[in-house]
Amino acid sequence: MNDFTFYSPTYFVFGKNKESETGIYVKRFQGTRVLIHYGGGSVIKSGLLDRVKKSLDSENISYIELGGVKPNPRSGLVYEGIELCRKEKVDFILAVGGGSTIDSAKAIAAGVVYEGDFWDFYQGLPITKALPVGTILTIAAAGSEGSPDSVITKEEGMFKRGASGEAIRPIFSILNPELTMSLPAYQTACGATDIMAHVFERYFTNTKDVEITDRMCEAVLLTMVKEVPKVITNPNDYEARANIMWAGMVAHNNLCGVGREQDWASHDIEHELSAVYDCAHGAGLAVVFPAWMKYVYHHDIMRFAKIANRVWGCDMNFDNPEETALEGINRLEGFLKSIGMPQNFTELGASEKDIERMADTACYGNGRSGEIGGFMKLKKEDVEKIYRLML
Amino acid sequence: MNDFTFYSPTYFVFGKNKESETGIYVKRFQGTRVLIHYGGGSVIKSGLLDRVKKSLDSENISYIELGGVKPNPRSGLVYEGIELCRKEKVDFILAVGGGSTIDSAKAIAAGVVYEGDFWDFYQGLPITKALPVGTILTIAAAGSEGSPDSVITKEEGMFKRGASGEAIRPIFSILNPELTMSLPAYQTACGATDIMAHVFERYFTNTKDVEITDRMCEAVLLTMVKEVPKVITNPNDYEARANIMWAGMVAHNNLCGVGREQDWASHDIEHELSAVYDCAHGAGLAVVFPAWMKYVYHHDIMRFAKIANRVWGCDMNFDNPEETALEGINRLEGFLKSIGMPQNFTELGASEKDIERMADTACYGNGRSGEIGGFMKLKKEDVEKIYRLML
Repeated sequence: MNDFTFYSPTYFVFGKNKESETGIYVKRFQGTRVLIHYGGGSVIKSGLLDRVKKSLDSENISYIELGGVKPNPRSGLVYEGIELCRKEKVDFILAVGGGSTIDSAKAIAAGVVYEGDFWDFYQGLPITKALPVGTILTIAAAGSEGSPDSVITKEEGMFKRGASGEAIRPIFSILNPELTMSLPAYQTACGATDIMAHVFERYFTNTKDVEITDRMCEAVLLTMVKEVPKVITNPNDYEARANIMWAGMVAHNNLCGVGREQDWASHDIEHELSAVYDCAHGAGLAVVFPAWMKYVYHHDIMRFAKIANRVWGCDMNFDNPEETALEGINRLEGFLKSIGMPQNFTELGASEKDIERMADTACYGNGRSGEIGGFMKLKKEDVEKIYRLML
Repeated sequence: MNDFTFYSPTYFVFGKNKESETGIYVKRFQGTRVLIHYGGGSVIKSGLLDRVKKSLDSENISYIELGGVKPNPRSGLVYEGIELCRKEKVDFILAVGGGSTIDSAKAIAAGVVYEGDFWDFYQGLPITKALPVGTILTIAAAGSEGSPDSVITKEEGMFKRGASGEAIRPIFSILNPELTMSLPAYQTACGATDIMAHVFERYFTNTKDVEITDRMCEAVLLTMVKEVPKVITNPNDYEARANIMWAGMVAHNNLCGVGREQDWASHDIEHELSAVYDCAHGAGLAVVFPAWMKYVYHHDIMRFAKIANRVWGCDMNFDNPEETALEGINRLEGFLKSIGMPQNFTELGASEKDIERMADTACYGNGRSGEIGGFMKLKKEDVEKIYRLML
């Protein structure tokens, strides 16, 4: 097992109607002047925003609002938010929405207290200072509610890049599974795929003998395999929504990644897809992961056989473990298809002609060295081949 | 799934030689005058205490020492520690040892800043204020390194009772698996049993549909079943020690308990054994748990069949699930025996004549109402019967 530190100090409040306690938590964590940050009209239409404001009112906490976050959140709104917060002397950022809204809120939180261009953080500068961020999560997907990470797309060039730092880890996160019930099946499935992808990125490692972390990864995946089909059939299944929502946090606060090398090539490969075609991140991952797996499984057949056996319930073929490994990948593809995810470039709206350019950006964009991935190092020609497996 | 809050803000530092960074973390968390609290001579003999002091010296942090913590830590030393800290104006408690040392340190930390008798906390008063506590863990067992709990035995009457509060949750915990290598096989096995018991207390619940938490519990148990026999055979197996040490934290920071009722009757039943006979807590649990399981499994046969199938690898008997349930309990007994744990009162040094009194104290002692347990409510006559199953 590799040495590690693990730190997940977010205060999680989980359950029905917990958004009505928002004001209590903002106050507990010393917010006095809040920016409520959100996306489109759904949080308004559903009445969620009103409930949140009412809760802030009841604690005499003042606030301003900034809506308009889009999926694959853009730098433009971040700049606008930073300026607004400075002008209005905001001391607490409250994200009401999914991963995009939370990531945008984190970028604003870091940018407000930084003299330079916030994009510096997305080019590698560690985030060491930020306004506190609280979240009210409406989509089980990105895990941003419990992570120190944020992904933003810079409009000039459509670069999609991540930043990280303990300072932007949410100080509290409110998770009410009921808020995810109104989510359409497609978005629900995209979120589920993202959650599973966060585990895959950590599961495929060259570090040996990290049984506890393997088992944690498998725990999340087994839960998803059981619970996701239920909510595709019945969006109002509270218990299944609750299991998925908590699994989404566990999948990405790094409990599933401690003590081991991780991969993350598939996220790099996907980020080009969602940056160029503006597809949902989860939908992109559903196309990328099986292709990546088919390309790399030879690197460690027994690890692929292990996930096939333990998560997908494949009988271990002791005479030919490769068959088990491949059967696991097949089952993943079948599962993703069954929940309505796209299978290839065509279904994703992607185009073969962009492959060379996307592979180039994935490997060299934004100062990268030409190699991605921790499980198997991938060069540009590897990434091109992986994209071609998605055609 | 029941509503819950989850908060685990401890900063965990895991890996080889990490105790040499102690000073850095004490400083980061604002300690300037430290009480180093420890047990017997092993931390001195092994050189651990010297390495810790050297690390504090290198950060110019002053300290005093208080050794002498015994297993099943006593109130006497806590009173002594409180007085010492007040006199010496200590602002940080550093526990170097196992669960007993950490629990004693937590009691001192809470007592120093409380005007009344610290035992009030162990009679139900919530702990809301305490000096910060850091830990350097030497035994994988109690999970106290990541929990808000402390168990102390009051010398007058030999009452063993727990207290709880976020204020006593360690602010940092250093986990170096190498430090556990010198532990004899018996103590290692006692610790492992304690870890598994923390999961059992959470696994056996009446709350339905908490798949993610079930799977987390199973992840820890499966890890223990794989890794513990390795360290009994080879105490210097670093990888196995590492897996067990991290599993011990995960088993008790409540990640395995969120969203559900828990039980904890077996801990209450065991506490009488270790209070009266001063046996190791883990050894007591090894005798209590199979007996408790045999007494209560009828309450939910399918839950016992589930753990038998998923953790102990028993084939599910679909015609007679009770057989599977019982086979799981058998396998647990076999496992505990194989790692050298006692099986009954005789091996534990306990005596039939004390049963009635212990059952009475477990159910009524220290202001209890007469019923214990969350999975199946147990009255005094039930507890007596469970003790008799251990003869």
